[in-house]
Formats: sequence, C-alpha cells, structure tokens
Amino acid sequence: MLIVMKVEATNDEIETILGIITELGYRGHPMPGSQRTAIGITGNQGAVDASRFENMPGVAEVVRVSKPYKLVTLDLRPEKTIVKIGDAEIGGDQLAIIAGPCALESREQAFSIAEAVQRSGAKFFRGGAFKPRTSPYAFQGMGEEGMKILAEVREIYGLKIVTEALDESGVDLVERYGDMIQLGARNMQNFSLLKRAGRSHLPVLLKRGLAATLEEWLLAAEYIMAEGNYNVVLCERGIRTFAQHTRNTLDLAAIPAVRRISHLPVIVDPSHGTGKNYMVNPLARAGVAVGADGLIIEVHDHPERALCDGAQALTFNQYNQLVEEVRAIHDVIVPVGVM
Amino acid sequence: MLIVMKVEATNDEIETILGIITELGYRGHPMPGSQRTAIGITGNQGAVDASRFENMPGVAEVVRVSKPYKLVTLDLRPEKTIVKIGDAEIGGDQLAIIAGPCALESREQAFSIAEAVQRSGAKFFRGGAFKPRTSPYAFQGMGEEGMKILAEVREIYGLKIVTEALDESGVDLVERYGDMIQLGARNMQNFSLLKRAGRSHLPVLLKRGLAATLEEWLLAAEYIMAEGNYNVVLCERGIRTFAQHTRNTLDLAAIPAVRRISHLPVIVDPSHGTGKNYMVNPLARAGVAVGADGLIIEVHDHPERALCDGAQALTFNQYNQLVEEVRAIHDVIVPVGVM
Amino acid sequence: MLIVMKVEATNDEIETILGIITELGYRGHPMPGSQRTAIGITGNQGAVDASRFENMPGVAEVVRVSKPYKLVTLDLRPEKTIVKIGDAEIGGDQLAIIAGPCALESREQAFSIAEAVQRSGAKFFRGGAFKPRTSPYAFQGMGEEGMKILAEVREIYGLKIVTEALDESGVDLVERYGDMIQLGARNMQNFSLLKRAGRSHLPVLLKRGLAATLEEWLLAAEYIMAEGNYNVVLCERGIRTFAQHTRNTLDLAAIPAVRRISHLPVIVDPSHGTGKNYMVNPLARAGVAVGADGLIIEVHDHPERALCDGAQALTFNQYNQLVEEVRAIHDVIVPVGVM
Amino acid sequence: MLIVMKVEATNDEIETILGIITELGYRGHPMPGSQRTAIGITGNQGAVDASRFENMPGVAEVVRVSKPYKLVTLDLRPEKTIVKIGDAEIGGDQLAIIAGPCALESREQAFSIAEAVQRSGAKFFRGGAFKPRTSPYAFQGMGEEGMKILAEVREIYGLKIVTEALDESGVDLVERYGDMIQLGARNMQNFSLLKRAGRSHLPVLLKRGLAATLEEWLLAAEYIMAEGNYNVVLCERGIRTFAQHTRNTLDLAAIPAVRRISHLPVIVDPSHGTGKNYMVNPLARAGVAVGADGLIIEVHDHPERALCDGAQALTFNQYNQLVEEVRAIHDVIVPVGVM
Repeated sequence: MLIVMKVEATNDEIETILGIITELGYRGHPMPGSQRTAIGITGNQGAVDASRFENMPGVAEVVRVSKPYKLVTLDLRPEKTIVKIGDAEIGGDQLAIIAGPCALESREQAFSIAEAVQRSGAKFFRGGAFKPRTSPYAFQGMGEEGMKILAEVREIYGLKIVTEALDESGVDLVERYGDMIQLGARNMQNFSLLKRAGRSHLPVLLKRGLAATLEEWLLAAEYIMAEGNYNVVLCERGIRTFAQHTRNTLDLAAIPAVRRISHLPVIVDPSHGTGKNYMVNPLARAGVAVGADGLIIEVHDHPERALCDGAQALTFNQYNQLVEEVRAIHDVIVPVGVM
Repeated sequence: MLIVMKVEATNDEIETILGIITELGYRGHPMPGSQRTAIGITGNQGAVDASRFENMPGVAEVVRVSKPYKLVTLDLRPEKTIVKIGDAEIGGDQLAIIAGPCALESREQAFSIAEAVQRSGAKFFRGGAFKPRTSPYAFQGMGEEGMKILAEVREIYGLKIVTEALDESGVDLVERYGDMIQLGARNMQNFSLLKRAGRSHLPVLLKRGLAATLEEWLLAAEYIMAEGNYNVVLCERGIRTFAQHTRNTLDLAAIPAVRRISHLPVIVDPSHGTGKNYMVNPLARAGVAVGADGLIIEVHDHPERALCDGAQALTFNQYNQLVEEVRAIHDVIVPVGVM
Repeated sequence: MLIVMKVEATNDEIETILGIITELGYRGHPMPGSQRTAIGITGNQGAVDASRFENMPGVAEVVRVSKPYKLVTLDLRPEKTIVKIGDAEIGGDQLAIIAGPCALESREQAFSIAEAVQRSGAKFFRGGAFKPRTSPYAFQGMGEEGMKILAEVREIYGLKIVTEALDESGVDLVERYGDMIQLGARNMQNFSLLKRAGRSHLPVLLKRGLAATLEEWLLAAEYIMAEGNYNVVLCERGIRTFAQHTRNTLDLAAIPAVRRISHLPVIVDPSHGTGKNYMVNPLARAGVAVGADGLIIEVHDHPERALCDGAQALTFNQYNQLVEEVRAIHDVIVPVGVM
Repeated sequence: MLIVMKVEATNDEIETILGIITELGYRGHPMPGSQRTAIGITGNQGAVDASRFENMPGVAEVVRVSKPYKLVTLDLRPEKTIVKIGDAEIGGDQLAIIAGPCALESREQAFSIAEAVQRSGAKFFRGGAFKPRTSPYAFQGMGEEGMKILAEVREIYGLKIVTEALDESGVDLVERYGDMIQLGARNMQNFSLLKRAGRSHLPVLLKRGLAATLEEWLLAAEYIMAEGNYNVVLCERGIRTFAQHTRNTLDLAAIPAVRRISHLPVIVDPSHGTGKNYMVNPLARAGVAVGADGLIIEVHDHPERALCDGAQALTFNQYNQLVEEVRAIHDVIVPVGVM
C-alpha cells in the first residue's frame, strides 16, 4: 500500500503516519518527491486497512498496490532517483561513467588506470578485489589488499570507488574502503546478500542476472529497498541467449522498460554485455542513445596481460575515443528530453 | 576460393578468368571494389586447384576460404556494398529510412501514410500485401490488390516499394509491382525462396530469423548471392529469448558483428524488435548509434485500428519525432567514422 | 465455433449442417469421434451466429471457441487421432518407429538401411531426398532420383515412406513417391507450404520450429487442418537455447503439454533433438517414458561416412539396442494408461 | 594434474605422495576407486612439475589435465561416486527418491507428508525452512523452527533430511539439524557459499542454475570438491528458455552429458523442472528412463493450500502413482546397464 501525502503536508503529519505504521508492526518508507511525499508500507502479511489512514491530516490518497513490487515504482516516486556520492551522481543530467579494470592486479596497474579514468572526466573508478570466477582455479582477486589500493585511488585521484561484494563480509569491506557496493549478475538473487546491502549506508549497483526477467530484477532491487536503502542503481549487462557472436546478449530494451516502471537510475555495461573489445564502443553509444544514465566500462593499461576479461578491456586510446563519442550522443539526446 | 585480381587487371583478364571458371563447371562471382576486383568461386564440390589460376595474367593472389561463407565476406569485397535503387540507396552516407504500415489495408490508408513518409524525407515505403500470420484465421493481407496499391504509391509519391514475398510466386509479384523483396524472419531458412530471390534482379531485404545465429543468417544471404544477386541488405529484428518485457530481444551487437565479417549493409527494425510503441524510438536511436545503415519502421495513420501489429505502430507525430532524433545522432556519429 | 452433434445424430443431419455452413460462405470440418461427431467452422471473419444452428435437428450444443486454434483441440475431438497409413499407424497402441538415414546417398545405402529397419519391426522409413542445408555449398540431397529410390524401398521392404518437402513442388513429389510429408523445423511457419500440405491426401509430419512456442506449433498444424487435411502428426525435435552440450534442447515437457490440448499424435526426434550419437538412446527412452506416440531415428550403415548429420546417426547395433529398450519401456507404461 | 597410483600401491605410498603435495604448497585429493586410487592436485598456480612424481614408488602415471575441471572427472575416478547417508544412498543400484513439501509450514503438515513419504519407500525427506523467494514480501520460510521440525521428522520417520542453505550461516543450521545440504539454482554460482559447503562433512545437493552451461555447473561442483567435500550430487531442475508451457525447460540431455564427463551422481527435479502438477509424473518417468540416479519431488497434503509452489505439488495419490511408475521403468532399464 502507498500513502500519498498532500503537497502541503507537514513533516509532523508525515512523522505521525510513520509512527502509526510502526505501531501496526509494519515498516514505512517515505519517498520525498519534488511535489509531494509518498510513503510505501512493507512488512504486512495481508492487506492493510486503508480506512485507518485515509482521513488522517496531510493524506491525499491511499493507493492499493497490485504489482509485486512497491518501493521501486513510479507510483511511489514519480521523479527519477538521483543517487549522490559526494559531488558525483548517477541519474542526474550528466552521463555517469564508471571505468577501471575488471580485477585489481597491483598498485601500479590501479594508479596507471585511475589516472586515465580521472583525466577522461569520469567520476567513478571500478576495480574488483574479490572476483566471482567460474573456475575455482582462476585468479580470485587480491582480496583486502586490493581494497586498500582502492582506498588509495580514492584518496589520490578523487574518484568514487565502485567494487563488488561477493558475500556479507564483503559488504563490510566495501563499507570500509569504498563508495558503492556492486552486486554481480550471479548474485542477483542471493537474497541474504541483498538484505545485507539493504542495511548499508552505501549505494548499491545491482547488475541484472543472466536469466533474470525484468520483474525479478526489480524485485531484487525491492529486497534492498525494503531494508531501508533507497540508493539503488540498476545495471543491464547482457542476458544469456543462444547467440554466439557475443558473450552475452545486451538487452537495451530493458532501459526504457525499467524507465516506464521505476524511478531508479539504470546504466549499461557494454564490456560484459558483449565480451568483445571491438563491440564495446558501438554498444556504449547505443546504451547512451537508448537513454541510460551511465556506463560501466572495463579499461586496462595492458589488456593483453589482464588477469581477467582481457578480451573485452579497452586500451586508453579506445577508452578516450569512447568517452568522446558517447558524450557527443548524450549532448544530442538531452535536449529532446530523453533523460 | 577467391581470386584477387591486380589493381591494374583489365576487364579482358577478368573475363578470361570467369570463362575458365565456367569451363571447369563452377560459377564465378566478380565483385568490383574501389581498388581491385575479387572473384568468388562457388559450385565446386571439393577444393579448387589454385595453381590453375595463380599465374594467369591479372591475378594478384588466390585465397583459400576456410569459412562456411564466401561471397558475403570482406575477404571478397573489403568495401561496404551500397545497394542502389534509383536515386535511393542503403549502405551509403545517408541513413536509409523505410517506413509504412505493417499491412496494407486500403488505398486511403496507404496514401495517407505514404504522404507522411515522403514528407519526412524517407525514401522507402514498406507495406505488406501478403502477411505471414501465426494463425490461419488472422487477416492474411490484401494480396495482389494490395500490390497494385503499392505500385500507385510508387508512382504518386516517388517512394521505393519494399514488400514481403512469402513464396516463389510472391517474388514474381514483387518483381511486377515493387522495388525490393523483403524476406521475413520465419522464411530466413526457406531455401527454395532464398534461391528464387537470388535469381531476381531486385535487391533483397533479408530479416534475421528468430533463432538464427550470425553464421546461419550470413549463410542465408550467401544462398541469395550464390545465385547471382549481390544486392542483399540484412535486417536485425530481434531474437527470441526468455525476456518478456518485449516481443523479441533486439540484438544490436549483431550490427558490429556483421560489419566485422561482411560487406553487406545492415539495418535495424525496432518495431518488430520490441513490439511496443513506447520502445520504438529509443531502440531506433540505439540502432543508429550502434552503426546501422538504416531503419525500418512501422507507422500508421490510426495505430489503434490497425489490422496487424497496432501495438508497435507509431503515430505520425511519434514517427516525425523519431526521424528527427535519429538524424541528429547520425550526424554525430558520421564524423567519427562509424559508418 | 464448434457444433457438437448428438450421439444419435444421423449422417443426413450432419450433411445438412455442413451444407448450411457452406451456404454461409464458411467451411465445415466434421470430426467423427467414438461417441459423437463435432463440426468445426472456419473461414468466418467475425463471430458466427450460434442461434442459426442451435435448434437444428441432431445438434447437441454450439460452443464458442476463445482459443486461437479450433481444429487441433480436444474440444473438437476428445479422442486421440490415429493416423493410419495402410497397416501402419501413429497414435494407436503400438509405438510407431520411423527410422532411416538423414539423407539418401545411394540405392545400396538405402536398401542396406531399409533392411535393418524392416528387420527391427519398424514400419516407417525416413530418408531425405531434398535436404534443407544451412550452407548453399553443402550436399543438397539426391532430388527426384532419391525419391525414386524411396519408392523402390517401399515396394521391396513394405515400409511406409516419410520424406521431407521443402516447397510446394516438393509436396507434389512426395505425393508421387512417398506416404507421409515431412515438414521441417525451418519451414514450420512457411505458411504457403503448410497450406499446400493441407490440400494433400497424404498425412503430414510437422516438426516443431527451433524457436516455436506451443501455440505457434499448434497453429501451424491448424493451418494444415484448416485446408481439410486432418492427418497431422506433431514432432518435438528440440529447441534452440543457450545450452551447448547438445545441438538442440529436447523439450520433452512438450509431449504432455500437447496431449492436454490436442488430439493429434506427437512423436519425438532424439537424433536432431540432441545431435550426439551417445545421447540418442537415453533420450529415445525418455521420449517413450514421457508418453510420445513414436520416435523418428537416424540410422546409417556407416555413420562415419554419412553425407549429413553423421554425428548423430546410430549404427545398426545401436539402433537395435534402442528399439529393444524403448519397447520394454513402452510395455511398462501402456498398462498404467499413459498412452 | 592427476597422479594415478598402481593397483598394488600401498597406503603408505599414497600418504607419501600426499605429503609431498602438501610440502609443495598444493592440495592433494585422493579418490579411491575399485581398482586403483587417483590423486588430484589443486592449489597450483601454474603447471606442476610431473617429473617430481613420475618415478616415485606406487605411481603408475601422471596425467596433465587440460579441462577446466579436475576433481569431478572420470579421469580422476572412473566409477560412479555413491553418496551414502547412513543406510540410504544416491548413485547406487536403487533409485533414490527425495520427497516432501516445497516449504515447511507446520509440524502437522511435515509429519503428515513425512508419513506418506516413508510409506512409499523413499528414504529422503525434503522441506525448506529458509526459502529463496523472488519477492521480499512472499513467505520466507519458518527458519530455525522449521529446522527443528525436520530434526523431529528424521527422528520419528527415519528419513534423511535434505534442506536448503541460503547462506553460510544456513549451512551451520543444516549441519546441526539435517543430513544433506541443498544449494539452490539461484545460488549455483554463489562461490562463498559453495566454498563453505565444501568445508562441511555433509553431502551436498547442487542444483543447476537457470542459465548454467554444463561446464559452469561442473565447475560449481569443483568448487565444493576443491575444499575437500567429495560427496556432491548434481540435480537438473530445468533451464530458462523462451518456452511458456512450462515454468522451466527440463533439459534431460544433461543427464547423459554429465555421465560422460563426471563420476558424480545426478538426479532430476521434475517439480521445479515443469512447474505444473500434471507434468510431474511424465517427466519423472522420463528422468528415470534417461538414466538419472534419483528424483526430487514436491508432495503436499493439501497442494491447494500450499504457501509455496502449490501448482506443482503432487497429492499423496499422485505421488504414490508416480513412485509405482518410475520404479517399474527403473526395473526395466537396470538390466540393460543404463545405471
């Protein structure tokens, strides 16, 4: 159930509603918008008695929700959510670019790449310290040592750190060293991990699972939000299909599909979405043209020596070319109101 | 096998080679490029003896082909093929726009839509007279009567007519009334039909099958070319996946994938590729940004009354908005050399 | 619309109803069952006026059909259809086995395999004279010469001939030389071909398309039946998925799914359904256990030398082992009423 | 690398080899077979120097492994692994049946179903106390209270308890109350959880992920085994495809595919694999016919009131019918050597 407050509702009125929701044993999720605040209710087993709220001061409307998700919807919050991390943001007017290596390999590698990322004007640095690898015998990442390098990158280059947590203890480490918790495609329905991320103060980058429907993906975001963390950014990174010319099939229609239902920002990962160096730039352009709020790109100082996913990493030159091209497209589509 | 001629090879030398190929019982396919001509050989059961050609006048090189396709490849023709129909072309510098209704319904409907298409600057009119419908009880198209309306549209509005042939006799009719033979996704591996289209003087628009790999699609084009018709345009129109938020999953990575292998132009169909009105414009933008040579768009004067695929047809206003946006993106990417 | 006749309805009453349907410009499809006859009506654009029929002599009930298919349904015919070809049948108590090479290669090959098939007790011989090949340069079959060999096989070994038609002229040839028209997966939505097969007096084996939903498959059968040919056998032969350990993913749940909706017999093709020799026997057993009415199996005297699909063809020994095992399973499940 | 010991190798010789492996900083995994013991080596970054072992007493052969997995392979252990839990086993001559409700709902429900399961001769009881639900608002299971009920079921009915762990602390609970750790499809690549299960003394039931290739599935098992837990049972439960007539597409070809590579037992889940009550029995029969070592079946005393997956749960009567039919098929195929 959603309680839509009047435009002129006071903070006190909102607090009173939240208090009653808590008393009833439920949880209230206030979502302030530019016009009005809406309050989502979760934790109820069956239907909540609407009449309990309808005539309370400040309440404009009580809306029964028939969809399986509540907090992610435009019903609750008609404006797009802008996730802010210091001076950087995802979901606003600027195209957000997250770039860096698949896996951290050394301090030198990280610094060399971070410098290139910073120079490009991107505000986010990605780099995995804990890597989910298909084989137990593949490089599993530098672990906490890598996390410390990330913290140094933040310090020195002023970039916001986006890095993956594979489990609940991994979230602890991102909270210590990073700025944004990445949850990978293979963990999209790791519900214990989603709940833990939902109790974090850091924003979450939630990648779509390889076989996830739109509804499952939004419900994974709902798991995070139901715990009280409303700073979720969705990331389309390709789905698994019969097609063999790419590692995954990038489903760009997911961007307008998310937009039609949800206020959450959504970005595109053309690196994992294709798995092939020569496709990253064209699909990055397509991702921006379709209306994504940002991109996450793998870039490496020596792709041919990368310990992980070298086939899809861009060189610095390729990366700079990409940034230039996607910004040009972004400049064209902003005036037509796509964003 | 490919025979690559020297830059300075004469027409006589080329003809001599073609004569020998014919004498050997094979078929030679000359592909003149801006620099040099290459000749593909088909019809051989096993390997062709290269030494027979290597020392002939005008021959630069004889290349053994290990790929399953020959004539579609950049090996045979390094420059992109430009398919020309009168003053219109697909594969050149201009973005090609093919627009019109899913199915022809009446003379009035066709003229009304054709006028809007012409006004937008598009040069191609699409409209089905024979419709491949999943159910035998659904509207199957106006048949030859519809074809005659298409011929009138061509006459009056100066648009090139792109229309589907469902079978060999359908190709006869397109040859009589139209300008370009469309082969639909469900017929992509109707080999008898491919061969018939290969013997036509009209260019062919070959849609990718719902479950077609890149190789199968290119080999379907190879079927057409092996019969002597080199004017083939490929069309990505979405593949079938588990995803439910769209009718099909538009696989835009197919565009750079085709580009890397083949000289054939490739366009995108965001109407069938999504099946949803509100997604057509964003995915059209993405298609142009990814580097497609053109778009094929369903537009209707009254989408809500369309006898076929109304859910994905654009209104005139939506269509005009789309044309404006995709042209702006096209203008941005041409200078960076994408096309 | 379906008109269900009374148990005691006379032939004259049925003929009268059919006459009226024809007068109205529709087509009536009488389906005699063990208890009563039902008549399907097709060819109507909108709803048919039920009151026209309800009070006519012999009519028990008039049923409006809301499903997209009519003639394939259990509503029209509650008992399973048994397709009879001389003394052989598909859909009855006996497990139908169709066996033979993928492609006919020579008279000797055909006779050698036919003898093994006959010896196994199977009643149907398969063998392609016209082969739908992904590449235009692959062996395309022996053509009409192969058809004549098939006719000899029928003569000498008393086997019923099941062979593929790729186009309308191919149907003519099967009518001349064979007993059952096979329509392949790639042609499942070649609607011109479906209609032609629907006008044939021969039964049709309709393979499921690689990306066909259950509904699309049943509607393809409906296309055939709507033309008046009610002897259709469905064949599950695997769908295209991301899985790489098989050529296709055999979807055995399709058998009970068809059974729940349709009276048409349905068989399984474990050869194309897996593409791997070692999997054919286990999946054939599974196909029989799930309740299929029969199997179609590729067997070859020298699989290693086969011109087509050798990797999935069984040797005679493997084939005999398979027949023994599937018959044992069939004997077990018949008493429990699966069939 | 694998070290294959001679048939006559002594325990001392094996221990000596293991000691050297440990000294080198690697991990040795001895797999005793009926004829000989093989030792897998993991933990090496690059290649291990084979000459170090080749001439040691008791060593027959040193085999370099080029596949991505080592411990799951028939190279390491040519006989099928039989997972034993008390007097019950999976992978031996008897068909293993695991049955019970999707989710535990109450003590009464659990006991009522357990009695039916015991009466059927099945030796394993399944029942979820922690449920991975797509929506955060769906019933999430009874938690530890449910685990205690499972422990009672074990006590009273003598059934082995198979229950799911969603996270590392869930494994602790299964170790306390259950007999076998189930890892669900959505967690198949939750690598932290796989490693934790690999350090358990309990056997693990590893379900295939919805989009998992055969190799990814086997590598997930390899993660568990690399930690020292060799008692892994694989479970095919359907993959995600475009098909809509079932919840998932049961990929029975995975059974012979696993068999060809791995010594691990493999069972089939026709309940989740189809999601439809009426399909469970036919697909269970098919699963046994294809050669699976067992089945996992959802059965409920009141499917219509089930809190989870009621649409696929069998009634007691349906379950008993299934057990009877699959045992009959199992009896037929055992003599032909399938198992």
